[in-house]
Amino acid sequence: MHFTAETSSNGVVERNFTLGEVTGLLWSPASGSDRAPLVLMGHGGGQHKKAPGILGRAHRFVTGCGFNVAAIDAPGHGDRPRPAADEQQIAALRQAQAAGEPIGPIIVRYHTGLAARAVPEWQATLDALQELPEIGAEGPIGFWGIMQGTGIGVPLTAVEPRITAAVFGCLGHESLTEAAAQITVPIEFLLQWDDEHVERQSGLALFDAFASKEKTLHANAGGHGDVPRFEADSATRFFARHLGRAGTSPA
Amino acid sequence: MHFTAETSSNGVVERNFTLGEVTGLLWSPASGSDRAPLVLMGHGGGQHKKAPGILGRAHRFVTGCGFNVAAIDAPGHGDRPRPAADEQQIAALRQAQAAGEPIGPIIVRYHTGLAARAVPEWQATLDALQELPEIGAEGPIGFWGIMQGTGIGVPLTAVEPRITAAVFGCLGHESLTEAAAQITVPIEFLLQWDDEHVERQSGLALFDAFASKEKTLHANAGGHGDVPRFEADSATRFFARHLGRAGTSPA
Repeated sequence: MHFTAETSSNGVVERNFTLGEVTGLLWSPASGSDRAPLVLMGHGGGQHKKAPGILGRAHRFVTGCGFNVAAIDAPGHGDRPRPAADEQQIAALRQAQAAGEPIGPIIVRYHTGLAARAVPEWQATLDALQELPEIGAEGPIGFWGIMQGTGIGVPLTAVEPRITAAVFGCLGHESLTEAAAQITVPIEFLLQWDDEHVERQSGLALFDAFASKEKTLHANAGGHGDVPRFEADSATRFFARHLGRAGTSPA
Repeated sequence: MHFTAETSSNGVVERNFTLGEVTGLLWSPASGSDRAPLVLMGHGGGQHKKAPGILGRAHRFVTGCGFNVAAIDAPGHGDRPRPAADEQQIAALRQAQAAGEPIGPIIVRYHTGLAARAVPEWQATLDALQELPEIGAEGPIGFWGIMQGTGIGVPLTAVEPRITAAVFGCLGHESLTEAAAQITVPIEFLLQWDDEHVERQSGLALFDAFASKEKTLHANAGGHGDVPRFEADSATRFFARHLGRAGTSPA
């Protein structure tokens, strides 16, 4: 893992890193990050490691809970080259969207292929992060990712025992059911009640599939892009409850 | 409205009151309650105005948000005599439960009759509370009530424009759909995902029926009695968001 840049603002240190082909960001408290819990963040489709929805929540996790937070560009996203096969699938997706055809099957195929590449990348990234003295191998680890972040995060969490709590949501395809059924850690699952891209029953079925004893569904009125701001606070408290160190006070 | 007793503990003043046949409790901050928002609380079936689930949340609303909180005994509950007709319905309910028969239809009939009596009682109580100088007629008003508290609270909120935000849940019968469709204020709706008394689809259908632009479903793994403690914090924040005065800091 190579750090390539470092900036600091509002009590948060931001470091760019690379690990092989993977490009990522690590946010840490300006003071007191040592052996703090770590939250991994997976961005949405077509977005990247520093999209506003990632950056805002990352800062909140750092300043509200004192956590370290890492995000990586998914294969073909952000600072990474996009393979021709991905280009073709994305073109097919846009075509279906423009034609008003169902995009579900294309998304499923795309996410499945993406997860096959992204899961080992996340595991290698986690190995490298745990070698950093300020993180270490002992601390609890959370995963946050909705939409495409869920498409990658569910298969990752299913095979990665180091992840002990996760926020998922705004996605629901049957190809994830089997992986969800292997997950037993606490889950907070977001759903947009009037999502124009995710069928309600499909989202409810994915929530139902998790084997976790503690799981909470937060379904909010509104469309795919209308996830309310207060859900960022809720995720902060969720991770504070499950990863939190004594004495931390979530925002 | 007659106050019949007053005690104080942990910064919360508790006053018993009567209003005609209605017996109730009013909790207020020991200091600074003037013109604070008001939360009305409806208890569950067979319970009363000072059941642990009511008392604990009432204290949290007072100490966390500086609100005034009022609870009244439903007809035939707590300090109020139980009419013979109610006795018969409760006996029928227990009999059905013991025989493993569906209790849904009995609950619907019982709640419907109860709400017809309880809604005007709540409205008279609200009139009287707003005449108190420490509450007044201007402040925002919330309603909290799950299970039987929803059976009464949904019809109440449908006809009572003074209520501007409500927490409901753990109930779902079709007799409430019409009232729910008249409600447009922000709603937080609890559901137990594995509720042995409330059918999941029926609870989801009731959530779906609210006409509110802002509504959030919180569905938690577990049975009827397993509503997680963190939902009390969530309700506190919900009311702080919608009723809160500037400068209040929810717990």
